[in-house]
Amino acid sequence: MDKIMQQSNNANTVFHTEWFSIDAVPGESLGRKPYYRLSCDDSVEILAVTLDRKIVLVRQFRPAVGMSMLELPAGYVDWGESPDEAVRRELREETGYVCDSVINLGPFKVAPSRINNTLYLFFGRDAELLAGKDNEADSPEVVLVTLEEFKRLIGEGKFLEVAGIATYCLSQMEGQI
Amino acid sequence: MDKIMQQSNNANTVFHTEWFSIDAVPGESLGRKPYYRLSCDDSVEILAVTLDRKIVLVRQFRPAVGMSMLELPAGYVDWGESPDEAVRRELREETGYVCDSVINLGPFKVAPSRINNTLYLFFGRDAELLAGKDNEADSPEVVLVTLEEFKRLIGEGKFLEVAGIATYCLSQMEGQI
Repeated sequence: MDKIMQQSNNANTVFHTEWFSIDAVPGESLGRKPYYRLSCDDSVEILAVTLDRKIVLVRQFRPAVGMSMLELPAGYVDWGESPDEAVRRELREETGYVCDSVINLGPFKVAPSRINNTLYLFFGRDAELLAGKDNEADSPEVVLVTLEEFKRLIGEGKFLEVAGIATYCLSQMEGQI
Repeated sequence: MDKIMQQSNNANTVFHTEWFSIDAVPGESLGRKPYYRLSCDDSVEILAVTLDRKIVLVRQFRPAVGMSMLELPAGYVDWGESPDEAVRRELREETGYVCDSVINLGPFKVAPSRINNTLYLFFGRDAELLAGKDNEADSPEVVLVTLEEFKRLIGEGKFLEVAGIATYCLSQMEGQI
């Protein structure tokens, strides 16, 4: 269960769910109305490449946008977990794949105009399928594509998630792919 | 003034502000609790390059994350505006720069697990500073950097916004930079 991290900057929670809260950040110092921020746990996302050079994607229905989407494996950092631990867990839970080593590409912001959390992007090499993957009903579908296919999916507008595209770009800039 | 676009998929607004609302998407079909979605207008963002090959960045304090951030010029699509019109307006309002032509790199999703809106990413060539820029107190600071400096800012963790990194990546893939 994810826990909403408490902030210490005088923000008041004005709406709360199990997954996030809406906080009003006082606007006095800016001479403005309160600023409404979505607060949620930090998250992680990974571009994992298998031993035979395929990228591990997931496809799942996203109620927020009302459509099925191809994305990189991602999820929230649980309470007490490091981003490194969280991304290994999310990759394993969502896809059944594990990586011996993962490279933290850095902390980033997804929607700095509205959401307070940090997204840690990762690259993972030599991903291998673990025999004992959970096959829960709500597990996303796993889709393996080559680097060329991934580039084509982006170019054709079939991979729409900006954080996944940024992870691909950063992995290239770091010489990982 | 931005207006929250109404959705027609039986979602109920459970919290509302001037800038966004929180909708509960019924979860019956999924056998689950309601899904809480942040609904807001579509948005636009642009990698604009000046005649002398500098990228136009903006720096501004972001209350949601409690820090000052370097970003690409961006904003909401106003009611009745096309994304193309919106991105030209936002670039001009935020930076004073105008582009003769802008290239729509496509519609994308910023946070498909939580936010319903679409983000249109753009590339703009030959940006020129308009003489009559508004200098409002809350205008962001304009920062011009070369392509090499921009890559270094990303690599050094000084440009944290994933949509901006994705726009850079897409502009490269399309052969624009």
